[in-house]
Amino acid sequence: MRTIAVKIRFLGAAYHGFQRQKNAVTVQQLLEEALLKILGEKAVVYGCSRTDAGVSAAEYVFHFQTGNPIAPQKIVGALNHLLPPDIGVTDAVQAPDAFHARWAAAGKEYRYFVRNERGKDPFCEGRAFRYAVSHIDVPFLNAQAQELCGRHDFSAFCSAHDGAGSHLRCVTRAEVRREGGLVCFIFAADGFLYNMVRIMVGTLLHISEGKKAPGSIRTILESGRRENAGFTAPACGLYLWRVFYPDDPFKSKKEEKHG
Amino acid sequence: MRTIAVKIRFLGAAYHGFQRQKNAVTVQQLLEEALLKILGEKAVVYGCSRTDAGVSAAEYVFHFQTGNPIAPQKIVGALNHLLPPDIGVTDAVQAPDAFHARWAAAGKEYRYFVRNERGKDPFCEGRAFRYAVSHIDVPFLNAQAQELCGRHDFSAFCSAHDGAGSHLRCVTRAEVRREGGLVCFIFAADGFLYNMVRIMVGTLLHISEGKKAPGSIRTILESGRRENAGFTAPACGLYLWRVFYPDDPFKSKKEEKHG
Repeated sequence: MRTIAVKIRFLGAAYHGFQRQKNAVTVQQLLEEALLKILGEKAVVYGCSRTDAGVSAAEYVFHFQTGNPIAPQKIVGALNHLLPPDIGVTDAVQAPDAFHARWAAAGKEYRYFVRNERGKDPFCEGRAFRYAVSHIDVPFLNAQAQELCGRHDFSAFCSAHDGAGSHLRCVTRAEVRREGGLVCFIFAADGFLYNMVRIMVGTLLHISEGKKAPGSIRTILESGRRENAGFTAPACGLYLWRVFYPDDPFKSKKEEKHG
Repeated sequence: MRTIAVKIRFLGAAYHGFQRQKNAVTVQQLLEEALLKILGEKAVVYGCSRTDAGVSAAEYVFHFQTGNPIAPQKIVGALNHLLPPDIGVTDAVQAPDAFHARWAAAGKEYRYFVRNERGKDPFCEGRAFRYAVSHIDVPFLNAQAQELCGRHDFSAFCSAHDGAGSHLRCVTRAEVRREGGLVCFIFAADGFLYNMVRIMVGTLLHISEGKKAPGSIRTILESGRRENAGFTAPACGLYLWRVFYPDDPFKSKKEEKHG
């Protein structure tokens, strides 16, 4: 059995998240159906993250194990052929046997895009959160976001549904900046709790609106209470942007022989 | 009766072009159905251009006449509410009675986006033409494109279906440049023949591939023969980008009283 790691991108709008569910189309389901056709055997797909319904990914990694000797690069073409237009495969490599897309990840980066303008823009619909309650002062909000950096208990910034034991996470990057006509929120951390990015964005937007005082992130963190934080920003603006692996199986690709 | 001019944006993927057709959904049809609900009377929509099936518009202007005294800004909100997510209304004004979205236009700008990379990118699917036959040398192709500028008979660059009398058009801008990960072709002219932009792009791509010699645009133009030009690049990469009006009804908006 070989372990194959695959890198994909997808638009989340049409899916109930990555992970397989009953009675709802997920990315995992489509991948497993396509792999069954390609490999001629069932392969279980293990994703790097359980993204929510409607969340997209600019870079998402999964792995599976197979006895089929197919070359990884052939899997790229075959999957792209079988998958719908909103899921694209960008790379596939043979990974070390013990590689696990989720457990080998040392951290992730998420980006959240806000369209801070009135009016409907069909080019952004379903791809960014339209938010016109108030004008976002980007440098001000970027300064506010810095209070999220560091090792904290993020209980105030996770949904009640999160069953994770420890809520201690280390945010290594928090940035708010303009990108074209959009406002982009960037967060990197060693891990994220359920809805954590969307609640961080919602809280920063409440500070932007004046519903919460500047500098209140610290007291919200210390309170550990979800009700002190802001709203959960909608899924459509959220993108898993990068997954960090200390031993990145995609980096050693050039030395490898395919097939 | 007042004349109302409206500015919209739309993604063309789901539509059989702008203009009403039997047995096919078009942008005009959806606009007229929505206006009937808003105005309580039938209004005929006149578009600035007959965009083809699958072609998008970053800026498209249409007008209609109505006896309903509704404020133009109310039409913006009402149309956005009734129209699907892939059509967005950005502005509406009362125009001079004689304004005609098509006949008042002195020129237009089109942009064509090419993704010059192998592999499927779900974020670009249906929004740019994926073309990986060969690497595009952008400065070289930009220099080649300059031969399209000026007043020429563009018979070689229009589909046989074009019934227009004269094929004389003046191209005022032809530019090929990088935009993010895409290659962008920009053309402005006093008017465009049927499929003209898509054939200009296809011809430039043939020069890029080496299928046609550098400098061959001039001889193709002089030949006046469609078969000497390149292929018709697919609709998905094409965007109507701007419509030029010598007396732009949207410019005088601020002096106007709405309602």
